[in-house]
Amino acid sequence: MVDAASSSETLADLGEWELIRRLGAFAPAGQFSDDAAVIEAEGPEHGGAGSVLGSAGPLVLNSDLLVEGVHFSDATTAPEDVGWRAAAANLSDLAAMGCTQVVGITVGLVAPGSTPWSWVEGVYRGLGGALATYGGVVLGGDCSGGAERMLAVSALGRLPAPPADCQARGGPWGAIRRGDGRPGDALVSTGPHGLSRLGLALLQGELPGLERIGPRAPSSLPIALVHQAIEAHQRPKPRFDAVWGLHHSRPHELPWRVGGCDSSDGLAAAVRAIATTSGCAVRLDRDALPLDQAMAALPQAEAWCLSGGEDFELVLALERQWAKALTAALPGSVVIGELLAGPAEEGIQAGGYRHFA
Amino acid sequence: MVDAASSSETLADLGEWELIRRLGAFAPAGQFSDDAAVIEAEGPEHGGAGSVLGSAGPLVLNSDLLVEGVHFSDATTAPEDVGWRAAAANLSDLAAMGCTQVVGITVGLVAPGSTPWSWVEGVYRGLGGALATYGGVVLGGDCSGGAERMLAVSALGRLPAPPADCQARGGPWGAIRRGDGRPGDALVSTGPHGLSRLGLALLQGELPGLERIGPRAPSSLPIALVHQAIEAHQRPKPRFDAVWGLHHSRPHELPWRVGGCDSSDGLAAAVRAIATTSGCAVRLDRDALPLDQAMAALPQAEAWCLSGGEDFELVLALERQWAKALTAALPGSVVIGELLAGPAEEGIQAGGYRHFA
Repeated sequence: MVDAASSSETLADLGEWELIRRLGAFAPAGQFSDDAAVIEAEGPEHGGAGSVLGSAGPLVLNSDLLVEGVHFSDATTAPEDVGWRAAAANLSDLAAMGCTQVVGITVGLVAPGSTPWSWVEGVYRGLGGALATYGGVVLGGDCSGGAERMLAVSALGRLPAPPADCQARGGPWGAIRRGDGRPGDALVSTGPHGLSRLGLALLQGELPGLERIGPRAPSSLPIALVHQAIEAHQRPKPRFDAVWGLHHSRPHELPWRVGGCDSSDGLAAAVRAIATTSGCAVRLDRDALPLDQAMAALPQAEAWCLSGGEDFELVLALERQWAKALTAALPGSVVIGELLAGPAEEGIQAGGYRHFA
Repeated sequence: MVDAASSSETLADLGEWELIRRLGAFAPAGQFSDDAAVIEAEGPEHGGAGSVLGSAGPLVLNSDLLVEGVHFSDATTAPEDVGWRAAAANLSDLAAMGCTQVVGITVGLVAPGSTPWSWVEGVYRGLGGALATYGGVVLGGDCSGGAERMLAVSALGRLPAPPADCQARGGPWGAIRRGDGRPGDALVSTGPHGLSRLGLALLQGELPGLERIGPRAPSSLPIALVHQAIEAHQRPKPRFDAVWGLHHSRPHELPWRVGGCDSSDGLAAAVRAIATTSGCAVRLDRDALPLDQAMAALPQAEAWCLSGGEDFELVLALERQWAKALTAALPGSVVIGELLAGPAEEGIQAGGYRHFA
């Protein structure tokens, strides 16, 4: 796709996915397959990972950006929520890699000189609240003036140490990787999807006159759903509990092998990413979409469930026996489909925010 | 300094240092004393650091921002140089913490959709060139649209493992910390200062009519100095070689204890930071300023040496015996003063770029 005529190409011409594909050429092969990087222990005597750290597993590093006007706006997001979301989005990537421990975060802050200190203080309170809830500390950071507000957060977490008698297949013990799905795996969603998008719609006033949104819709949304949706959007929760659930539900005879990622870019995008990276086809069960029951009556429900984004649930590819044990043990988790032998299909709708558009 | 009347304070009112001081309250005590964070190994069986990793020491994490119009501009900086500088500035902080190994970096890229792909490609070539020179790989990253170009780089490095029979005083083996200076220490600069600022002046055309800049100045700058200064500005070199020099010059009877930081914010700022954090007074020897000889005739030489910034040398506080061995072994390194008992003085000129001004 690169030729002489491409010298004037812009990022808008490429789009986000083609940009990431090209940038992947500057990293080791496969390094960009997951949202976060596993840092293997290295040294003259150690080629491998995990066990050299004794009871603590390898570190995992992840970096995310939040840009004003793209990821948040003063109009819909209080500074505490900006901070919480910045931390939670990063920690969700750590959970989605299988981390069971948060070490901490670094915070890069860009803001114009006219920014009130009270806004920055609120952002750090939100960051601190997420760390107080999920673990870890502020390790450091940087700050700079600039035309628009921006947060660059890097988060460091740890995989669990392997049990003494266990081996991992396909990566370090406890790691969850997009490419570790196999044909025959069940796809599991750890919770409902679409709530965050509904919360955004409510905050932005996208749903005026709720009584007129269609014959299938309730005359108005239940107040509990309104609260739940706004909470889902403003205070997303990284699913470390689901990672523990995975460990506790693993049938003893199975080695560690878990495909997966989080659904921050949307459920359909997560399923597509797992299928493509694992080299599998995929079948989603339309009757088993992970919809919140109270939200199901909305005409947008199915579209927002598949492509709303920012639900920060985990989407996992597991052997059926393990999937059955997990969904029995973890409230809200459901089997939503399966991976199949064959090429990844294009049948799943695209979703997620388009950067550079 | 926080009271009811401060609710309308802006970041410009605070300035960078007061902002960082306040943000430090959200981190563990002392966490912001250094530019990078040492990640201690943790786990039920491990309270300490270093040795649990066997031959590889603890990890060090650092994050830096580069904002267009603040840290670089299209006018004076080619995209390859933007990338090199972004990596080199981060790696310099790793070297300044005592790292002897680079694990890798994550790169957050914000840019308007109208940005040419060729610019991004150039930036990544520059990043890749620095990693090819100093080690490490691109571990991951994130990208987003935004109004101005910005790079957020996080770098992960490793301290060396301690020799079997050695113990560190004041921190993990091999760590260099701002607060580890002691009264009586010699202050060492690993190289000349002011060249980067001269390079910037040359690139920005700040020095028109070099023949008219003063009676002490040469009628024109030597061409070798021009090249050296521009190279210093565009292609700064993290001083990992100086870290190795420190290890090889350590007198056997001394434990590991090295105060220091890099001089990215200026030589005077580095000396002041070491003295303040170490709780010492300081004496700089004005006759021993680390000036490049060819540059010394310029009337700006002394000011740029002290406050020009971005030279990315290491400034170290060492026992005299060690300082003598280091300066004998490491070409270009010189003793520039000493730490003294007493409160840190205000006599050292402030320097460095003022953000949010």
